[in-house]
Amino acid sequence: MATLPSVSYSLTVRLELDGRGSAVGSLTNAVEHVGGLITALDVASSGHERIRIDVTCAARDTDHAQAIVDALGALEGVVVHKVSDRTFLLHIGGKIEMKSKVSLRNRDELSMAYTPGVARVSQAIAANPADARRLTIKRNSVAVVTDGSAVLGLGNIGPQAAMPVMEGKAALFKRFADIDAWPIALDTQDMDEIVGTVKAIAPGFGGINLEDISAPRCFEVEERLREVLDIPVFHDDQHGTAIVVLAALRNALRVVKKNLGEVRIAMSGAGAAGTAILKLLMHAGASDVIVCDVHGAVYQGRGDTDPNLSWIADNTNPAGYTGDLKGAVSGADVFIGVSAPNVLGGEDIAEMNQDPVIFALANPEPEVDPEVAHLHASVVATGRSDYPNQINNVLVFPGFFRGLLDAQSHHVDANMMVAAADALADTVTEGERGPHYVIPSVFHTDLAQQVAAAVREVAVSGRSGE
Amino acid sequence: MATLPSVSYSLTVRLELDGRGSAVGSLTNAVEHVGGLITALDVASSGHERIRIDVTCAARDTDHAQAIVDALGALEGVVVHKVSDRTFLLHIGGKIEMKSKVSLRNRDELSMAYTPGVARVSQAIAANPADARRLTIKRNSVAVVTDGSAVLGLGNIGPQAAMPVMEGKAALFKRFADIDAWPIALDTQDMDEIVGTVKAIAPGFGGINLEDISAPRCFEVEERLREVLDIPVFHDDQHGTAIVVLAALRNALRVVKKNLGEVRIAMSGAGAAGTAILKLLMHAGASDVIVCDVHGAVYQGRGDTDPNLSWIADNTNPAGYTGDLKGAVSGADVFIGVSAPNVLGGEDIAEMNQDPVIFALANPEPEVDPEVAHLHASVVATGRSDYPNQINNVLVFPGFFRGLLDAQSHHVDANMMVAAADALADTVTEGERGPHYVIPSVFHTDLAQQVAAAVREVAVSGRSGE
Repeated sequence: MATLPSVSYSLTVRLELDGRGSAVGSLTNAVEHVGGLITALDVASSGHERIRIDVTCAARDTDHAQAIVDALGALEGVVVHKVSDRTFLLHIGGKIEMKSKVSLRNRDELSMAYTPGVARVSQAIAANPADARRLTIKRNSVAVVTDGSAVLGLGNIGPQAAMPVMEGKAALFKRFADIDAWPIALDTQDMDEIVGTVKAIAPGFGGINLEDISAPRCFEVEERLREVLDIPVFHDDQHGTAIVVLAALRNALRVVKKNLGEVRIAMSGAGAAGTAILKLLMHAGASDVIVCDVHGAVYQGRGDTDPNLSWIADNTNPAGYTGDLKGAVSGADVFIGVSAPNVLGGEDIAEMNQDPVIFALANPEPEVDPEVAHLHASVVATGRSDYPNQINNVLVFPGFFRGLLDAQSHHVDANMMVAAADALADTVTEGERGPHYVIPSVFHTDLAQQVAAAVREVAVSGRSGE
Repeated sequence: MATLPSVSYSLTVRLELDGRGSAVGSLTNAVEHVGGLITALDVASSGHERIRIDVTCAARDTDHAQAIVDALGALEGVVVHKVSDRTFLLHIGGKIEMKSKVSLRNRDELSMAYTPGVARVSQAIAANPADARRLTIKRNSVAVVTDGSAVLGLGNIGPQAAMPVMEGKAALFKRFADIDAWPIALDTQDMDEIVGTVKAIAPGFGGINLEDISAPRCFEVEERLREVLDIPVFHDDQHGTAIVVLAALRNALRVVKKNLGEVRIAMSGAGAAGTAILKLLMHAGASDVIVCDVHGAVYQGRGDTDPNLSWIADNTNPAGYTGDLKGAVSGADVFIGVSAPNVLGGEDIAEMNQDPVIFALANPEPEVDPEVAHLHASVVATGRSDYPNQINNVLVFPGFFRGLLDAQSHHVDANMMVAAADALADTVTEGERGPHYVIPSVFHTDLAQQVAAAVREVAVSGRSGE
């Protein structure tokens, strides 16, 4: 499971070197010798004696990038000038902007878009509040809200450092579902203040996407916001993941010809994502599930006081298994990990029931090496983009919110999530479906539209769940 | 002071009429007969017997628009089909949107703008918070915050009805200063909640523009936010107006050859705008000012308990004048009204000192009929776009924030405001300056850049005031 160079760690190094010697030829060797990958080599200026070359290459990580720069600098006759990090260059000034949809070229246009004309539009909304969804951006806007407490795998890095992730999320909303999302990074991690703030800013938005808020705080924040708001509230780290897992599991079970209601599922991880996956799978019909955390299986009588763990104990593990993860996995049909790297080995997968399905979603290092898992399992999915079957939230949240906004939905429920998962699963046709293709690529055409249509239908029909 | 038809009340009426008769010719007469103004007449479809015509015309107000539709419908052989309001059409779906500045066409681009590449950018900001202004939208973004309590002249219409105004404001920020502003309409009018909410959402923004928050709450909200935030907080209804008034007054006094430090100024209105104008004029050197409210002149010993009125009593009206507005205006060099329609008549203006300057800013009906004021005054300015010398906040807020953002300023002070006013005044050259041109049009080229440069210079030089 060696990590390969990635363009996400792509750098451009400007070099000056002797134009007469053989230094140019040695550049590629030098980079490849330390494991880098040259993706472009541009001569910036060339004189009789000195030439300037921009070498762009992919590295594994920051240390590796430095090693590449050092290797280039160590070549005889080569001087390293500027080192540019392409990812940082792309972030300068931020990744999103506000655009006006109306032109303001002259006073007439100004008088319709702003005073005095705008007054009549405001009066119309005051008289009929439902018009806000017709005459303002509320109809297409989502707040991407974080408190910076659990950003990617980086932990509690705070609101300002979370902004690049939130901006990226907003860009994805636009790219995949034409939604106008704006990042709101909160200068508080106090539960009451988060709830109060999001409630206060809600009037201008048609939905709230909570993001990277640490467990167990995220459960209460979401629950309380759903109570006080009349627009849908969706914690993507929980429900986005759960929907994609359910979609992938639907197809994986079709591949191995098993039924969700009959399989035994062993889970590793009882955090935000794990709990949401568990609840959605059970809502969709799963009944035989054992959830493990760092202390082993969660069961009634283990003495957990955390309300989340108590709920799990009361609603899973019907046989009252009290052992460790490896014992839970033994004989199971499905393993779903949203926990920590390398908690299982090939020998554990070998002990599972026939044709096991492995979703090892810890990132970047999965619960079990996917190459080892493949030796024993029928279907393997991970969170990584360099293996087949990537479980990626981008597959669902844009289309999910598109459906909610189009339906002018006031809430989110589990039936919508199941419908979204089914629609996502069905984008993989029977002919395409196989062990290495249980879930489509994020660039699959019409993905968001199909998810949106399914969510919209449930929302409009007024069925409710949860 | 008759109100003329305005395109801000422009409507398009689809008519079906007899193609054989003379009905087409009668349309223009019918509209003009009720005082409407036809701006376009488009034949939508024409058959042998019936033709469809879209008549677009400007009306004075909603009742007038209805009168025009009625007049058209009363014509023989004319059937009125759809009536479209151009201002409402322009507002459908809202006036602004979010755009991504990065392309997300393939996985490589996704891996730089989002995971895994974005993680390094977040880590860089966590290590060096100042990088947030380099690598996120904070460097160019402003929150346009309202509680919907004092929207235009419409009063307390609430946050959703305020959104069209806030969206318009955001569009103006972009149009005139390339700033990315996003509207935040608050579902609370509680002082503590407003302050708490704005403080909480501040990390992702480089500045806060408060808008349409009623007095006296706006004073405390602004003061408290300035204490707790490290980004500039600017209440446009106060300071935007004050800056434009100071700029226009600078030029008006040049026209009449008087000095700000020597003129006697009578003001009508002690609300948000009036107080801000007063304070800025005094900061710029005005010393002889009498402020009147509905009870007459504000003076020491009048028994006002409101802290704002107490401040005015302590700092103005040095002679202790205790009479009414008309008495205060008598003998004054300058009248500035930000209060109510028609509180003064021509006879009052006639009693002022030689070459009086009149700023009658109540909108849409000024404190004194500008046509009457012109009979006695040397310079007249209003808030209306259909008279010369319009005092319009759009002249200053885009450039003012451009300067603050470019300087990465952590605060706003009175020196910046005076500098902005001086820069704005100086966009009118000596050759252009005259009684009817003391302030430029909002479409004046380079206006925002010149205001921005002046603000930036003060902000960077670190001088502070207030």
